[in-house]
Amino acid sequence: MKTKLIVLLSWCLVALTQAQVEKIEPPFWWSGMHAQKLQLMCYGKDISKYNVQIEGITIDEIKKTENPNYLFVTIDTKGIEPGTFSIHFLEKDKIAFSQPYELKKRRENSSQRKGFDSSDVMYLIMPDRFANGNANNDSHPDTVEKADRSKPGGRHGGDIQGVIDHLDYLKDLGATALWSTPLLEDNEPVYSYHTYAQSDLYKIDPRYGTNEDYKRLASEMHKLDMKLIMDYVTNHWGSKHWMIKDLPTKNWIHQWPEGFKRSNYRMTTQFDTNASVVDSKGCMDGWFDTTMPDMNQSNPLLLKYITQNAIWWIEYADLDGFRVDTYSYNDKEGIAKWTKAIMDEYPDFNIVGEVWMHDQAQMAYWQKDSKIGAIDNFNSHLPSVMDFTLHDALMVVFNEDKGAWDKGMIKAYDNFTNDFLYPDINNLLLFAGNHDTNRINEIYQGDINKYKMAMTLVFTTRGIPQMYYGDEIGMLGNRDKKGDGDIRRDFPGGWKGDTQNAFLSSDKENGRTNDQEAFHSFTKKVLNWRKNAKVIHTGKLLQYIPFDNVYVYFRYKEEKSVMIIINNNSNDQELNVTRFKEGLKDYKMGTDIITDSNIDVTEAITIQGKTSMIIELK
Amino acid sequence: MKTKLIVLLSWCLVALTQAQVEKIEPPFWWSGMHAQKLQLMCYGKDISKYNVQIEGITIDEIKKTENPNYLFVTIDTKGIEPGTFSIHFLEKDKIAFSQPYELKKRRENSSQRKGFDSSDVMYLIMPDRFANGNANNDSHPDTVEKADRSKPGGRHGGDIQGVIDHLDYLKDLGATALWSTPLLEDNEPVYSYHTYAQSDLYKIDPRYGTNEDYKRLASEMHKLDMKLIMDYVTNHWGSKHWMIKDLPTKNWIHQWPEGFKRSNYRMTTQFDTNASVVDSKGCMDGWFDTTMPDMNQSNPLLLKYITQNAIWWIEYADLDGFRVDTYSYNDKEGIAKWTKAIMDEYPDFNIVGEVWMHDQAQMAYWQKDSKIGAIDNFNSHLPSVMDFTLHDALMVVFNEDKGAWDKGMIKAYDNFTNDFLYPDINNLLLFAGNHDTNRINEIYQGDINKYKMAMTLVFTTRGIPQMYYGDEIGMLGNRDKKGDGDIRRDFPGGWKGDTQNAFLSSDKENGRTNDQEAFHSFTKKVLNWRKNAKVIHTGKLLQYIPFDNVYVYFRYKEEKSVMIIINNNSNDQELNVTRFKEGLKDYKMGTDIITDSNIDVTEAITIQGKTSMIIELK
Repeated sequence: MKTKLIVLLSWCLVALTQAQVEKIEPPFWWSGMHAQKLQLMCYGKDISKYNVQIEGITIDEIKKTENPNYLFVTIDTKGIEPGTFSIHFLEKDKIAFSQPYELKKRRENSSQRKGFDSSDVMYLIMPDRFANGNANNDSHPDTVEKADRSKPGGRHGGDIQGVIDHLDYLKDLGATALWSTPLLEDNEPVYSYHTYAQSDLYKIDPRYGTNEDYKRLASEMHKLDMKLIMDYVTNHWGSKHWMIKDLPTKNWIHQWPEGFKRSNYRMTTQFDTNASVVDSKGCMDGWFDTTMPDMNQSNPLLLKYITQNAIWWIEYADLDGFRVDTYSYNDKEGIAKWTKAIMDEYPDFNIVGEVWMHDQAQMAYWQKDSKIGAIDNFNSHLPSVMDFTLHDALMVVFNEDKGAWDKGMIKAYDNFTNDFLYPDINNLLLFAGNHDTNRINEIYQGDINKYKMAMTLVFTTRGIPQMYYGDEIGMLGNRDKKGDGDIRRDFPGGWKGDTQNAFLSSDKENGRTNDQEAFHSFTKKVLNWRKNAKVIHTGKLLQYIPFDNVYVYFRYKEEKSVMIIINNNSNDQELNVTRFKEGLKDYKMGTDIITDSNIDVTEAITIQGKTSMIIELK
Repeated sequence: MKTKLIVLLSWCLVALTQAQVEKIEPPFWWSGMHAQKLQLMCYGKDISKYNVQIEGITIDEIKKTENPNYLFVTIDTKGIEPGTFSIHFLEKDKIAFSQPYELKKRRENSSQRKGFDSSDVMYLIMPDRFANGNANNDSHPDTVEKADRSKPGGRHGGDIQGVIDHLDYLKDLGATALWSTPLLEDNEPVYSYHTYAQSDLYKIDPRYGTNEDYKRLASEMHKLDMKLIMDYVTNHWGSKHWMIKDLPTKNWIHQWPEGFKRSNYRMTTQFDTNASVVDSKGCMDGWFDTTMPDMNQSNPLLLKYITQNAIWWIEYADLDGFRVDTYSYNDKEGIAKWTKAIMDEYPDFNIVGEVWMHDQAQMAYWQKDSKIGAIDNFNSHLPSVMDFTLHDALMVVFNEDKGAWDKGMIKAYDNFTNDFLYPDINNLLLFAGNHDTNRINEIYQGDINKYKMAMTLVFTTRGIPQMYYGDEIGMLGNRDKKGDGDIRRDFPGGWKGDTQNAFLSSDKENGRTNDQEAFHSFTKKVLNWRKNAKVIHTGKLLQYIPFDNVYVYFRYKEEKSVMIIINNNSNDQELNVTRFKEGLKDYKMGTDIITDSNIDVTEAITIQGKTSMIIELK
C-alpha cells in the first residue's frame, strides 16, 4: 500500500514537472569531462520566473533571456561523481517542482579516443538512399514527410539498420570509416531525406531509427575495427526546429529586416581585407536556404548549446570523428571556439570541415595552425579540410590530352605544388565526388579506365581518401543536369524486392553485373592493400612533372617506397627510369599491386595507355 | 724634352697595361657606398700569375679561379675619398704593370633616391620599336645584326634618342615612369632586338646609343619629373657575352652533361615540398633559351659581379628602379641576396620582379617579408611583384557575360579577395599587357569600350599601373597566332617617312586617326587626373561583390573618396545606392572624371552599358 502511494506520488511529481519543464538539454551528461562548466538549457512555460538550486552542485550562473520560457543554468561539475541529482525550481524560496538530472560515468579512455586519420578510407553514404533495414520506420507518425520511393527528392526508407546490415560489405570493400550524412530529426515537409534542416539536435530521426540504433551502429563498427563519423551542422538548423519556433533570443539566429535573406555564398569575404561589411555579413549571416535559419555562433548561449550537443554525441554514441557541414559559412570566431572546445575535450579526435573553395591558400586558411590564417590573426583549430582543388582537377584531367602547359595530368600534379601552404597535408580529405557533386563515373561516362586512374590517385597520394557510395560499382548521376536526386540514387539491393543486389558479387544470383564487378574488384583490391600500407598513410610524397600526360610519384619512408604511375596518355608509354633515381633509390624490383606482376625497375618501365600502376618496391 | 719622354713612357705603360689587363670591372666605382667591399674583376691573358697591390687601399682578398685569365680582387673602400688609384700588378714583388682606377664622388643624396611607387604610371616600351631618333646607329660595326625593318624579328632602328625625342609625348599622356626593355649590348646574330641575351653588362648597345645617351635619358626624364626604370636580367646572359666565351669558372653558368638543357619552366618546383631534385634543378638551372646561358647565382663571384653591375647602373645613370626579368627562375637564395644588397644600398629604391604565376599565394611568396615565403623560410627582399592574376582576369572578363558564379566582373573582383596574402598591395604592378602577351586591344578586337573598362580598373585599383606602348592608340598584336613580332610593331610615327604619326593629335597632319584619338584622349584624361589623385595612389580599397556584371569599388582616405563603377553588362544599370553606404559615407555629390558630369549619389545611379565611371566624391 505504501509502495503504491509512493509510486502515485512520484507519478504526480513527474506529471507536474513535465508541465513545468518540457526539456532540459543536454538530457544528461558525464562526470569527469575536461570542460567542467555545463550549461543546462531548461525549457518550459514561464520557467524564467523560478530560481534554481541543485543539491551538492554549485550553480555558477543563471541566465534569463527575453523569452520567459528559457533558463540557462551553468553548473560546475568539477569533482562531482557520477549519479543523479535533483534540480529544484524555486518560487519564493520554496521548491515549486524538481527534475532529476544524471551525470553518467564515462567510457574508459573516452577522452583519448583516436579519430579517423590517413590510415583510413572514408565511405560516404546518404542513409535514406543506402539500404532499408527496417521497412516499419519508412514513415513515422512523429514526422511529417512520408516515404515515397518514386520521388527523386522524396524519402526512400533507408535507415541505420540498413547500414548495420551491410557493414560486412563495407569491411570487405576495404572502407575503414563511415561518414553518413545527417541522421538527426529533420521534420521538413519536403526534401527531409537530405536531413540538413534538423529539427531536434538530440534525437535521431525516427525514420532512420533511434538514438540507441545509432549507438549500436558505432558499436558494431568498432567490433569490425571501423570508425563512425557524424555529419554535424553548426551553421543552420531546420525551420521546424522547436527552438526556432520559440526563439530563446532574437539573435539566436541571424534575422534580416527583409525576412529571408539568402547568403551570397562568397566565402572569400571572410578574409578579404577589401570586403564591404554588407557583403561579409551577407555571406556569414545570410541563410543557406529558405528552410535553414542561420545560427548565430557569436551568441554565447547558442555556441555553448551546439558545443555541448556535439560533445554529447561523441560521448553518447562513441564517435570517431565529425564532418562539419558548410564550415566556412559560420561566424568565424564562433566556429573556431566550437572546434577548439571539442578538440580540447578529445585531443586525438578528428574533425573535417567542408570548406568549398577553389584555391589552396583559401582552404589552407581554415586548417588548424595555418600560417595563412595567422596573417589574418585567425586559427580555426580545425584539424582537417577537404581537398576541393584536387576534386576540381579530378573532374577534368582524365578527359584532357597532353600538350598544353596546364592540361591533363599537369593539373593533378599542380595541386600538390602548393602543399607547403597547408599545416598538415596528411589531414586533407581527398575525394572524386560526394553528395553535392556530379558523380565521378558520370563525368567519365562510365569509363572504368578513367575511374581506375582517378581512384589510384585518391587512394595513394597524401591525405585521407573518401569515396562516395556506389562509385565502386560505377553508379552514374548528373547533378548539373538532373538535380540532386540523380546523384543520390538508391544503392541497388538496399531494398527488398530490388531487381538487382549490387552488395553481392557477380557470381551470386542477381549480384553485380560484370561491369559493376570490374569497378568493385579494382576498388576492393587497392583499398585492402592500402589498409596495411603504412607508407601510403604517412609516407612522404615525391612527385615528378608529368610529361606526355604521364604522372609519376612516390610515397616513401625510410624502409619502404611505392612508385605510382598514372598514364593518362592513350598510348603505351616507356619511361626511362634514370629520371626517377631519387625515388627509386637502390630498388631493383617491384610488384604492381593492381596486376600482381613483377616489374624490373632498373630498366625502362612500360605502362599501357590509360592505366595506372602502384608498384611496391623491394 | 723631359715631358715628351714622360708622355712616351706613359704611352708605353698604357700599351703594356692594355696588353695585360683587358678589362677591370666595374670600370670605376664611387666613394662612400654602403657596401664597403668592392670586388674588382681583372681580366687579361694569364693575369692570375700576378700579385696585386693598391696604394692606400686595403686588399681583403685575391681570388683566382681555374681560368688564369681572371683575378678577383676585393678591396675595402671604407673611408677612401674620391680619387684615382694605381692598381699594381706584381711579379716576384716587382710592379710588372699598373692600371688606374677611379672612385668617383657620388651624386648628392644618391642613396636616398626614391624609386617608382603607386603614385606612378609606368609606360613600357621596346626601344627598337618605339622611335628611331638616330638613323646613323641603326646598324653598327661592333655588332653583328644589321637593321632590317622588313623583318618582324629583325632590328628596326629604334633607339634612346628616339625615346628622348618623345618624352614630351609621354609626359602629356600622363605616364610618369618609363620601363624600357633591355638596352645593354646584345650581339646575337638574330633576334637581338629584344636584347635579353646581353653580351656586355657595362655597355649600352651601340645601336641604341651610348652609355652617355642612357644617362642623358635619365637626366631629361628627371627634368620632367619622370622616372627611369632599367630592365635588369640576372637569370641569363647572351651566348656572345665575352665572359661566356672564356668562363672564369666552370660553374659561372649552369652546365649540363647533355649540353643545352631547356628549363622546364615549372617555377612551382621552387617551393613544392614534394618536388624532385631533378625537376627543381631543371627549372632553376635549365636554360631559358638556347642563346641564354643560365647564370649560377650561387657562385659568390658571379653574384657579386651582377650585384655590383646593377648598383653601378643605378649610380651611373641615376636610375629610379629596376624591373627584373624572369625573377623566379634564378637561384632563390642568390637572387634574394642580390635584391637585398641593392635595397640595402638604396632603401627607398624600388624593384619589380617578373614572377609569372597564376596563383596569388605563389606570387605573394616572392614579395618582400612575405608570410607565405616565411612558411618556406624564404624572404626575397623584392619590394614589388607583377599582378599576373589580375592580368589573367583582364584578358577574359570583358568578353564574359553575367550569370555564372565565376565569370565576368566576378573574376576581376575575385583577384582582390586574396589581397591579404600580399605583404604590400600598393607595390603590385598592374597591367593589361606587356611585351610577352597578346595586346589588350587585340583580345578585345579594338573595342574601345572594353579598353576603357579594363584600363579604368588598371588605373584606379590598388597598385602601380603599367601600360604597354601603343595600347593608348589601340594598337593590335596577336602573339599566340602571329608571334612576338606582332605584339612589338613599330609605333607609327617613330620613323622618318612613316605614313602616319600617332605621336601627333588627330588635328595635326598625318596625326592620329579619330579612332586612335579616342583611345588616346581617354587614357590621357584618366592618367593626368590620376597624377594628383593621392587617394588612388595610397587610399584603401573597398569592394562590393559584382551583381549583374557590374563591379563597384571605392578608393578612400579619411579626407577623400572615389567611387568606381564598371558596368560590363550590355544594358544600362541602375544602382541602388543603399548598398554602398559604407563607401559613400555622407557624400552627396560626385563628378565622373571621365565625362566631367555631376552625379547625385544620394539617389539611384544609372550607368550605361559597357562603360565605367570614376566618381570623385564631394
